[in-house]
Amino acid sequence: MKGKKIFDIFIQILIVISLISFSMETLPNLSPLFTKILNILEFIIVMIFTLEYIVRVITSKNKIKFIFSFFGLIDLIAILPFYLTMNIDLRAVRTFRLFRLFRMFKLLRYSKAIERFKNAFYVAKEELILFFIITIMILFVSSVGIYYFEYQAQPDTFSSVFHSLWWAVATLTTVGYGDIAPITVGGKIFTFIVLMVGLGVVAVPAGLISSALSKVRFDENNNKEEINE
Amino acid sequence: MKGKKIFDIFIQILIVISLISFSMETLPNLSPLFTKILNILEFIIVMIFTLEYIVRVITSKNKIKFIFSFFGLIDLIAILPFYLTMNIDLRAVRTFRLFRLFRMFKLLRYSKAIERFKNAFYVAKEELILFFIITIMILFVSSVGIYYFEYQAQPDTFSSVFHSLWWAVATLTTVGYGDIAPITVGGKIFTFIVLMVGLGVVAVPAGLISSALSKVRFDENNNKEEINE
Amino acid sequence: MKGKKIFDIFIQILIVISLISFSMETLPNLSPLFTKILNILEFIIVMIFTLEYIVRVITSKNKIKFIFSFFGLIDLIAILPFYLTMNIDLRAVRTFRLFRLFRMFKLLRYSKAIERFKNAFYVAKEELILFFIITIMILFVSSVGIYYFEYQAQPDTFSSVFHSLWWAVATLTTVGYGDIAPITVGGKIFTFIVLMVGLGVVAVPAGLISSALSKVRFDENNNKEEINE
Amino acid sequence: MKGKKIFDIFIQILIVISLISFSMETLPNLSPLFTKILNILEFIIVMIFTLEYIVRVITSKNKIKFIFSFFGLIDLIAILPFYLTMNIDLRAVRTFRLFRLFRMFKLLRYSKAIERFKNAFYVAKEELILFFIITIMILFVSSVGIYYFEYQAQPDTFSSVFHSLWWAVATLTTVGYGDIAPITVGGKIFTFIVLMVGLGVVAVPAGLISSALSKVRFDENNNKEEINE
Repeated sequence: MKGKKIFDIFIQILIVISLISFSMETLPNLSPLFTKILNILEFIIVMIFTLEYIVRVITSKNKIKFIFSFFGLIDLIAILPFYLTMNIDLRAVRTFRLFRLFRMFKLLRYSKAIERFKNAFYVAKEELILFFIITIMILFVSSVGIYYFEYQAQPDTFSSVFHSLWWAVATLTTVGYGDIAPITVGGKIFTFIVLMVGLGVVAVPAGLISSALSKVRFDENNNKEEINE
Repeated sequence: MKGKKIFDIFIQILIVISLISFSMETLPNLSPLFTKILNILEFIIVMIFTLEYIVRVITSKNKIKFIFSFFGLIDLIAILPFYLTMNIDLRAVRTFRLFRLFRMFKLLRYSKAIERFKNAFYVAKEELILFFIITIMILFVSSVGIYYFEYQAQPDTFSSVFHSLWWAVATLTTVGYGDIAPITVGGKIFTFIVLMVGLGVVAVPAGLISSALSKVRFDENNNKEEINE
Repeated sequence: MKGKKIFDIFIQILIVISLISFSMETLPNLSPLFTKILNILEFIIVMIFTLEYIVRVITSKNKIKFIFSFFGLIDLIAILPFYLTMNIDLRAVRTFRLFRLFRMFKLLRYSKAIERFKNAFYVAKEELILFFIITIMILFVSSVGIYYFEYQAQPDTFSSVFHSLWWAVATLTTVGYGDIAPITVGGKIFTFIVLMVGLGVVAVPAGLISSALSKVRFDENNNKEEINE
Repeated sequence: MKGKKIFDIFIQILIVISLISFSMETLPNLSPLFTKILNILEFIIVMIFTLEYIVRVITSKNKIKFIFSFFGLIDLIAILPFYLTMNIDLRAVRTFRLFRLFRMFKLLRYSKAIERFKNAFYVAKEELILFFIITIMILFVSSVGIYYFEYQAQPDTFSSVFHSLWWAVATLTTVGYGDIAPITVGGKIFTFIVLMVGLGVVAVPAGLISSALSKVRFDENNNKEEINE
C-alpha cells in the first residue's frame, strides 16, 4: 500500500512539472539549449504517462469501461497529442499543445475533498443557475443603459451594446480595469444605480457555495455519528 | 401539455433572439443588407408576439384583468412601439427602441425559481433598505471628506462634492477605475479609513441575500415534509 | 399623533435638502443668483431647525439632560455654526461649513432599524476588532515586503514604507486604482501571495456583520414569540 | 497583577513605536538629525527588549524550553540583528533590518482573541486548502487561455503564460490595476467566462472563515453553559 502512495505522489509531481514546463515553452527568447531540455523533459514525462496508462488499462477489471471512463479518457488525451504531432511540421503543433493542459485533470483523481465540493455545488445548483441568469440579465440591462448614456460622448469606446457589455462585466465584477469608464453625468448616476443593485447580486454565488459547503460538512458529520451510534 | 411546453420554449428563444438583434442594431458600420435582415427579423418577431398576445387575451377567463396585469402590460409594451413608430420618421424611433428591452421581462413568466428569489428579498427587506440608507450616508460623508482633502490639489477632478461622489462610488464598491484617485497624504489616509469602515458595510447585502436564500429553501423543505407527514 | 408624524417627515426632508444645498455650494462656477437662493434656503432651514430645537428644549421633561444628550448636542451643532459665522469675514466660514454635515446625524433620531444594526455590531464586536488588527498587520507586512521588492525598480512610487502602504490599501481592498502597481517579478509574486492570504481576511468583516444581523433578527423573533406565548 | 498589566501595555506600545520608526527610516530625504533620533530610539528599544528577554528567561520555570519556544525565539530575533550588525559596515545591515519586522509577532503574545481565530482556521482548514488548490488551477487555466487569445494582439504584455498569470491574479481577485487588460473580442469573452466561474470560487474562503468563526463562538458559549449548569 505504501508503494502505491509513493507512486501516486510521483505522478502528481510529474503532472505539476509537466504543466510548468508547458508554461515555460511560452516564454519569449528561450535559448536553444533550454528548449532542448524542455523537449527531453516532455519526452520523458510522456513516456512515464504512457507506461502509467498501459498499467492502468491492464490492471483494471473492466478494460473497456476504464478506457471510456472520465479518467481513462483524460489519461489518453494527456499523451495522445504527443504521438499525433511527432511526424507533423511544427506549425500545426501549436494548437495541439493546448491539449497538454488536460493533464491538470489527472490531478483530480487524487483529491477526495473534491467530492465535498461537488456535493456543495449540487446543493446550491438551482440558486447558482438562477443567479447566473439574473447576472446575465443585469449585465445586459447595464450594457444597454450605459450605451444610451455614453454613446454620444464616447462613440469610440461605447460604440455598441456589445462594447458596453465589456464595461458592464468589468464594473459589476468590480475589476474596473479603467480602460472604459463613463464620463457623462447621466452615465455616472446610472453606474451608481447599477452598482447598488448589481453588487448585491453578483457577489451572492460565493455566499451560496460557502454556506452549501458548511451544510455538506454538517451532513457528513451527522452521518458519521449515526453510523457510530 | 407537451405542445404548450414546446410553445413556451419557442417563445423564450424568440425573446432571446429579439434581444440579441436589438443589440446588433447598435453595432457601428452595419452593412445595408444586414440591417435589412434585422428589420425583417424584427417584423417576424413582432408578428408572432402579437399573435401570442391575442391568443393570451382570448383564452384568458377575465380579459380585462389579464390586459391590466403585469404580464399583460409587458406583452403589450413588447409590441406596441413597433406599431406606433411604423409611420413616423426615423429620428423619433430611436428612443422608442429602448422599449424593446421590456421583452426581457416576458422571460420572467417562465421562471419558477424567481419566486424563491422574491421571497429571499422579502425576508431581508428591512436590512437591505437599512444598508442602502447607511451606504448612501457613508458615500456622502466620504465625498465631502475627500472633497475637503483633495480640492486644493486636484481642483479639476474633485471640483465639487458631486464630482467626489463619483470617486466615492468607484472606491467603496472597489471598482476603482483609476480615473480619479487621491494624491495628497491626507486624502490617502482618509481613503484608508473610509475603506476600513465602508467595505464591511457595502459588501453586507450580498451576505444578507445569500443567507435569506438559505432560509427560504430551508422553510420550503420543512413545509414539504409537513405536508408529506 | 398624526401631526407629529407629518412634522417628523417634514424635518427629515429639510435635513436632506440642507445636505444637498451644502453639496451644491461646492459646485464650481455657481451664478450669483443661485448662490443667493442657496443662502436664503440655508437661512430658512436654520430658522426652522432653531425653532425645532427651542420646542424640543421646552417640551422635554429634563431640560438640562436633553441639552447635553447626544441628539440635543447634534441639534445645537446643526445650527450654531450659522450664528457664530454671521458677523465674521468669509474666509473663516469655510471650515465651519463642514459642521453642517452633522445635520445628517439628526436623521438617526427617526430610524428604529439602526438599533438592530447596533446590536449586530455589538455581537460581532470582538471579531471585528480582531480583524481590524489583523488587517492592519497584513497591510503593514505587505507594505514592507513590496517596498523591498519594488524600491529599486520604482524609487518614485514606492519611495518609503508609507508610500507602499497606499499600494497595500488599494490592493488588499481590491480597489486597484492602477496609479501604483508592482513591475518586478518578485513584486508580482509577492502581490500574488499577499492577495491569496489577505483577501480571505479583509473580506471577512462583511460576513461577520451579515451573520450577526441574522442572529439578532432570529433572537428578536424568539423574544416576540416568548412574549406571545 | 496590576504592575504586570502596565508592563504589558508598555511593551506593546514600544513594539508599535519600533515598527513605526522602522518604517520612518525608509522615508527618502531624511535629515541627519532625524536619522540620529531614530537610531537612538532604536538603541533604547533594543535595550528594553533585551532586558525583557533576560527577565523572561530568568523567571521562566523551564529555561531551555522557553528559549526554544515560539515566543522565546521571536524575542531573540527581535534583538539579535542589532547586536550582530553593530560592528559590520552599513551595506550588509540593510537586509538584516527586515528582521526587525519580527517584533510584530511579539504582539501576538497579548492577544487572547487570536486563539479563536486559530480555531476557526482549524475548522475550515480542509476547505481552505481545497479552495487554495482550486484557485491555483483556475488561475493557471485563465493564464493559458488569455495567453492564447491575446498573445497575437499584445505580444509585449501577454508575452508568456507567466506574464498572463499576473493578469489572472489581478483580474480574479478583482483588483484590476489596468496595466494589463484584454483587447481582442475573444479575450474579452474569455475574461467574462473566467470571471463568472472564478468570482464564485475566489471569494469563498472569506465566507468559510466567517462561518467557521461563528461556529467557534457558538461552541465556546455552549461549553460555558455546560460548565455553569
